[in-house]
Amino acid sequence: MNGQQQQAYDRGTNIFSPDGRLYQVEYAREAVRRGSVSVGIRGDDGVVLAASKRVRSPLLEADGVEKLHKIDTHLGVASAGHVADARQLVDFGRRRAQTDRLRYDQPMAVEPFTKAVTDHVQEYTQQGGARPFGAALLVGGVDTNSEGEVHPRLFETDPSGTPYEWQATAIGADDDAVREYLEANYGPDVSVDSGIELALSALADARGEPFSPEEVDVVIIDPTYRELDIDARREALESLDLLADRAS
Amino acid sequence: MNGQQQQAYDRGTNIFSPDGRLYQVEYAREAVRRGSVSVGIRGDDGVVLAASKRVRSPLLEADGVEKLHKIDTHLGVASAGHVADARQLVDFGRRRAQTDRLRYDQPMAVEPFTKAVTDHVQEYTQQGGARPFGAALLVGGVDTNSEGEVHPRLFETDPSGTPYEWQATAIGADDDAVREYLEANYGPDVSVDSGIELALSALADARGEPFSPEEVDVVIIDPTYRELDIDARREALESLDLLADRAS
Amino acid sequence: MNGQQQQAYDRGTNIFSPDGRLYQVEYAREAVRRGSVSVGIRGDDGVVLAASKRVRSPLLEADGVEKLHKIDTHLGVASAGHVADARQLVDFGRRRAQTDRLRYDQPMAVEPFTKAVTDHVQEYTQQGGARPFGAALLVGGVDTNSEGEVHPRLFETDPSGTPYEWQATAIGADDDAVREYLEANYGPDVSVDSGIELALSALADARGEPFSPEEVDVVIIDPTYRELDIDARREALESLDLLADRAS
Amino acid sequence: MNGQQQQAYDRGTNIFSPDGRLYQVEYAREAVRRGSVSVGIRGDDGVVLAASKRVRSPLLEADGVEKLHKIDTHLGVASAGHVADARQLVDFGRRRAQTDRLRYDQPMAVEPFTKAVTDHVQEYTQQGGARPFGAALLVGGVDTNSEGEVHPRLFETDPSGTPYEWQATAIGADDDAVREYLEANYGPDVSVDSGIELALSALADARGEPFSPEEVDVVIIDPTYRELDIDARREALESLDLLADRAS
Amino acid sequence: MNGQQQQAYDRGTNIFSPDGRLYQVEYAREAVRRGSVSVGIRGDDGVVLAASKRVRSPLLEADGVEKLHKIDTHLGVASAGHVADARQLVDFGRRRAQTDRLRYDQPMAVEPFTKAVTDHVQEYTQQGGARPFGAALLVGGVDTNSEGEVHPRLFETDPSGTPYEWQATAIGADDDAVREYLEANYGPDVSVDSGIELALSALADARGEPFSPEEVDVVIIDPTYRELDIDARREALESLDLLADRAS
Amino acid sequence: MNGQQQQAYDRGTNIFSPDGRLYQVEYAREAVRRGSVSVGIRGDDGVVLAASKRVRSPLLEADGVEKLHKIDTHLGVASAGHVADARQLVDFGRRRAQTDRLRYDQPMAVEPFTKAVTDHVQEYTQQGGARPFGAALLVGGVDTNSEGEVHPRLFETDPSGTPYEWQATAIGADDDAVREYLEANYGPDVSVDSGIELALSALADARGEPFSPEEVDVVIIDPTYRELDIDARREALESLDLLADRAS
Amino acid sequence: MNGQQQQAYDRGTNIFSPDGRLYQVEYAREAVRRGSVSVGIRGDDGVVLAASKRVRSPLLEADGVEKLHKIDTHLGVASAGHVADARQLVDFGRRRAQTDRLRYDQPMAVEPFTKAVTDHVQEYTQQGGARPFGAALLVGGVDTNSEGEVHPRLFETDPSGTPYEWQATAIGADDDAVREYLEANYGPDVSVDSGIELALSALADARGEPFSPEEVDVVIIDPTYRELDIDARREALESLDLLADRAS
Repeated sequence: MNGQQQQAYDRGTNIFSPDGRLYQVEYAREAVRRGSVSVGIRGDDGVVLAASKRVRSPLLEADGVEKLHKIDTHLGVASAGHVADARQLVDFGRRRAQTDRLRYDQPMAVEPFTKAVTDHVQEYTQQGGARPFGAALLVGGVDTNSEGEVHPRLFETDPSGTPYEWQATAIGADDDAVREYLEANYGPDVSVDSGIELALSALADARGEPFSPEEVDVVIIDPTYRELDIDARREALESLDLLADRAS
Repeated sequence: MNGQQQQAYDRGTNIFSPDGRLYQVEYAREAVRRGSVSVGIRGDDGVVLAASKRVRSPLLEADGVEKLHKIDTHLGVASAGHVADARQLVDFGRRRAQTDRLRYDQPMAVEPFTKAVTDHVQEYTQQGGARPFGAALLVGGVDTNSEGEVHPRLFETDPSGTPYEWQATAIGADDDAVREYLEANYGPDVSVDSGIELALSALADARGEPFSPEEVDVVIIDPTYRELDIDARREALESLDLLADRAS
Repeated sequence: MNGQQQQAYDRGTNIFSPDGRLYQVEYAREAVRRGSVSVGIRGDDGVVLAASKRVRSPLLEADGVEKLHKIDTHLGVASAGHVADARQLVDFGRRRAQTDRLRYDQPMAVEPFTKAVTDHVQEYTQQGGARPFGAALLVGGVDTNSEGEVHPRLFETDPSGTPYEWQATAIGADDDAVREYLEANYGPDVSVDSGIELALSALADARGEPFSPEEVDVVIIDPTYRELDIDARREALESLDLLADRAS
Repeated sequence: MNGQQQQAYDRGTNIFSPDGRLYQVEYAREAVRRGSVSVGIRGDDGVVLAASKRVRSPLLEADGVEKLHKIDTHLGVASAGHVADARQLVDFGRRRAQTDRLRYDQPMAVEPFTKAVTDHVQEYTQQGGARPFGAALLVGGVDTNSEGEVHPRLFETDPSGTPYEWQATAIGADDDAVREYLEANYGPDVSVDSGIELALSALADARGEPFSPEEVDVVIIDPTYRELDIDARREALESLDLLADRAS
Repeated sequence: MNGQQQQAYDRGTNIFSPDGRLYQVEYAREAVRRGSVSVGIRGDDGVVLAASKRVRSPLLEADGVEKLHKIDTHLGVASAGHVADARQLVDFGRRRAQTDRLRYDQPMAVEPFTKAVTDHVQEYTQQGGARPFGAALLVGGVDTNSEGEVHPRLFETDPSGTPYEWQATAIGADDDAVREYLEANYGPDVSVDSGIELALSALADARGEPFSPEEVDVVIIDPTYRELDIDARREALESLDLLADRAS
Repeated sequence: MNGQQQQAYDRGTNIFSPDGRLYQVEYAREAVRRGSVSVGIRGDDGVVLAASKRVRSPLLEADGVEKLHKIDTHLGVASAGHVADARQLVDFGRRRAQTDRLRYDQPMAVEPFTKAVTDHVQEYTQQGGARPFGAALLVGGVDTNSEGEVHPRLFETDPSGTPYEWQATAIGADDDAVREYLEANYGPDVSVDSGIELALSALADARGEPFSPEEVDVVIIDPTYRELDIDARREALESLDLLADRAS
Repeated sequence: MNGQQQQAYDRGTNIFSPDGRLYQVEYAREAVRRGSVSVGIRGDDGVVLAASKRVRSPLLEADGVEKLHKIDTHLGVASAGHVADARQLVDFGRRRAQTDRLRYDQPMAVEPFTKAVTDHVQEYTQQGGARPFGAALLVGGVDTNSEGEVHPRLFETDPSGTPYEWQATAIGADDDAVREYLEANYGPDVSVDSGIELALSALADARGEPFSPEEVDVVIIDPTYRELDIDARREALESLDLLADRAS
């Protein structure tokens, strides 16, 4: 299908092309690739989420560009793509998780949470009057059963509203390159600690150069959500020999 | 009707072409064919549903790409096409079956369940403001009468909202090739056990090569819904000499 | 009016062409002609409805392709055209007939039933936001008055929402050819029994060859709705020397 | 204004052309002219409504193609144009007349009835989202005052929603020719009886040949609505030497 | 702005052209000019409204083509343009005047009545989904204060929703010519009686020939609304030497 | 941006052009300039509003073309542009001021009143389904504090919904020329009396010739809204040597 | 993507271009750049907001062109772009902050306030039927914790609905040049007093010449919102040798 033929079908959010594609959804995937990359890694004892950040100006507060979002004590999200769209999904997710917890008096499991988000995303691809979400999420969380066993889970939600479960993956710019690195280096029996190293190495590999702790955010859920502070990020980069020279 | 003439009618979900066709529904059928194939086989004692899966990355959890969905203890669904659309239909179906069970205090029979889904699908082809569903379902289930006799049923729902009843069929990529194999090999007095073999053989035949147990999901309803675990799938492939060499 | 001029008016469901035509309604009539043919015959003692069926695959359950639908004990419908659209009309009709029976505690007469359906169909040709129904119905039923006299009635509903009353007629593919046969062979004092023969002969004449009992469904309302089972259909075809050779 | 200029304004139901015309309303008038002709004649003692009918097939029940509709005991309507649209107007009118009778406990007078219908018709020419009605009505009725004096009235409603009062007129195909005949032959002191003769003569004149009693329906309101049965129609045609040879 | 440029802005009811014009409103003014002319004259003791009528057929009841409408005992309206649109405005006005009278227990003054109508008209020029009204009104009425002094008022409402107060004016076909005649002949101290003469003379002047009493309707409000019957109209025409020869 | 490029963005009320402009709002400003000019002058002791009027016909009541509107005893408005649109804004403002007074039992201050109007105007520039208002207002009023000190305020509201506060300004045709005159002649310590002279001089200057008292309306709010009657206007024009020769 | 290709995607507020961009949002950013520049600077002890103003006419009240808005005692906003749009956001923000304060009985923290605004802004970029806001805001405020420690925060909201946190930044015309100046001159340990100087210097640098106190507004929040009066602004400009010669 050439460009002109494509244009006949790519402006309506709720029409199929003759070969059964939804172009607006595919364009929304391009919006995701315009955002900086985020990585997720599932370990035996928890999940690691890491987000690369572009700092446009030294006056911009790096912490102000949120790519990692706490949903609940056991559940977090890394986003890529249109920032404002991602925020809407995060808000939706927080309300959903909170409602579920109030209703059943226990944390919402990671898979149903993910599917609640993707069902919401799908509706924007089928109903008229709105565009799809130009954002993807990595959903990381830890389910704990009644015996206290932890089950870390990692999901991706894409602009079509499809949920995928991963051992490790990336969304955003250069997601293919990062995922390739992960495929080559992810192995069995990953721990959260080695997951942090793998995430930072993957981001550095895609970037092609070391970076500063301001340029990356890291969160671990093992099984409780917590952010790595700037010292911990600097230390981790240093120990991997990935710390950029310039002082932060 | 040539391409340009066709374009005059194929972008509105709620208009007919001069020869009485609904192009958006036909394009949605193409979306179904873009999805990997699913097979359904009705035996005397139950129904077999099997779904082929494309594993894009070794890090992707194969179980995370759901093509087979439990609706109720006696009722399951295999989907093909746009994954997020199929999930919406599955959610619709689950709510519908649950409501029916609560109201009448007995499981919903397979045929009325199927028609509730197709009526829902049809509305998206006639009302403006939304596009058709880009997904088809195979609905398999077992009705049990008051004497305890089981009546396995197998239906297909397509994007136009038409229900078809089958002895055995396929939806998705290469559905024609798979159905041809089934027509040649399906006979009277099929059991669930021989149905599993037939389903796997048909998928392998269309694929042209053996495959691994991770690349297929199988569910039987006889009369209770249960999934075949990976060992059972490997054993079944092995016994049919369809197991790919590479270790899983 | 040439093709290009026609295109100026044929895509909006709610606009007239300069010569006062509603093209979308006419295209919906084409959708009816794309469906296999159905026949209706009014006898003195009841109504016969028969529907030809195309069996695409030996694995397809012929009974699963419904063209004949019971509305109430005294009332049935044969459809042609877009199957999913016809199902919506049938559902509408069933609810309407049931409501009427509950309200007045007697069966709904055939004519008001038909007009309730056509009024519903008309609205889809005038209001914006939806397309016309791509289906026609033959409504057959028997009114019984307080003295117990039966009055068989046969109506057609078309996509414009117009009701027609017939002695005998056909809808769907080759409806003109079948109706021509009926005009030549329908006479006064038709009974339901001779009506069955006339219906099958008309279908065979249009088809140009004998056929199997799986390829036709027959229903009689005299005054109670009942389907002819496959043996009765085979027997009828045999006695008319219309039975195809191949075993069913 | 040439054809192409006209096309710039004739597809929206709610826009004016530069010369202040509403093309969709004018096209709806063409739809009226596509229907067979109906005649109305006001006599001193009542109103006559007659409708010509095209019988497409000998199997079609002529009575099933309704062009004359009883609204109330003192009020009837003859329609021309899109049959399904006319039915909607008739239904609207019946509900309106019934509501009025219930509220005021007396029959609705002919003029307010007509204006209720035309107001309803007008709204479909101004509001977006729907098309105009492609049907015109002749409203005939008899008002009776408290002294028992009868006042026959005859109105026309057209697709713009304008009411006209007539002594005698026609709507539908060849309405101009029929009206010309009426202008030449309608005189003072017409009775219902001579009105029937005038109506039949006018129809035959426009048709250019005699016709059968199945091809025309006649209703008189003097002051009570009643249909002429087929024998009365045959007799009337015979006495006017307008009866076609072929047996009915 | 040439024709093609104009077409870029003249089909949407709710858009401005680059030079700040609302074309649909201007086209609606053309619709007013397509209607036959109506005249209004304010005298010291009351208001005269007169409407010219085109009688298309001798069978058409001239009284049936209403151009003059009583709103309340002290308030009347003459219309020009699209008849069905004018009827809607008249209905709106009657309901409004009635509501006002019920609420305040006194007749609605002429100016607030006019402004209620024009506010209603304006909304159809700004909100989407409907077209402007293709009708103008002359609102004539007499306000009576608590001392019993009468204040005749005459207003025009146009399709933009602007109210204008006049001593005398015309709307509809040839409104400019008629207004020119009024400007030349209207003077101070006009009485209702001389106003009738002035109105008839103005209409005859624009027409260029005498006319019959059937071709004009006249209403006076002084301060009570009443119609001039056909004899009074004939007499008035005769006394002005404006009576057409042909017998009425 | 050339004309054709501009047309790509100027017909939708709710879209931006590539250079960030809202063309429909700019066209609405043109509609304001099509209206005759209004002037507002803030003095130390009150506000003067004056409106120029075009009298199309000697029969048109000049008072009937309202450009100056009383909102409350301390608050008035002069309008320019589309008269019917301005009336809607005036109605909105009156209701708003009345509601505010009822709620807080004191007159609404001039600035919040103005902003209530501009917020209303803005909504018509952002929401779909309606066009912007083609009218601007000068809002003049006097706030009185608890010590009885008066604070005259003068605001402009434009079609974008922006409020501006002025010492003196003009809206409508030739607003630039009039404002230039005001800039040259407005000084500190203006009283309402000198403001009247300044307003009339500015209007005469832009007009290039003297005028009659019928061609201008003047209102002062000091701190109570009152209109200058025709004698006061004539006297003022005379004393300024601006009175046209022709008798009024 | 060339101009013509861009036009295919840039008029719908709710569609993506093939490369994943939202053109209407980008055009809204251009609308922001059309507005005069505003600056925000975060000091250790508070926040400074300054807005440059273009004074079109000496008669225009400079205070009447609001660019700085008080939201609450601890919270203010500087706007750039479409003034009427900014006012809507300010109104939204005030209502939101007030509701929050009423509900929790404490001032709303700066970050949640900002995100409430950006979520509102985002909805206008995804839902159909409205355009994005053509305005950006700088949100400055001071959070005070239970120990009485103050935490000044400075955020930017852009037309996409993305929140950014800054140490110092600018929005509106020449925002890049002003931000460049800030990057070169902003250092650690900025106080509100030095922040005022930095803001004025940055504006003067971008302007390339001194300016008068009427051409700038300044607000500080430390931790209470208050405006610098004209004397304070003149004094500050004078001490920086940035005061224009012309008397104000």
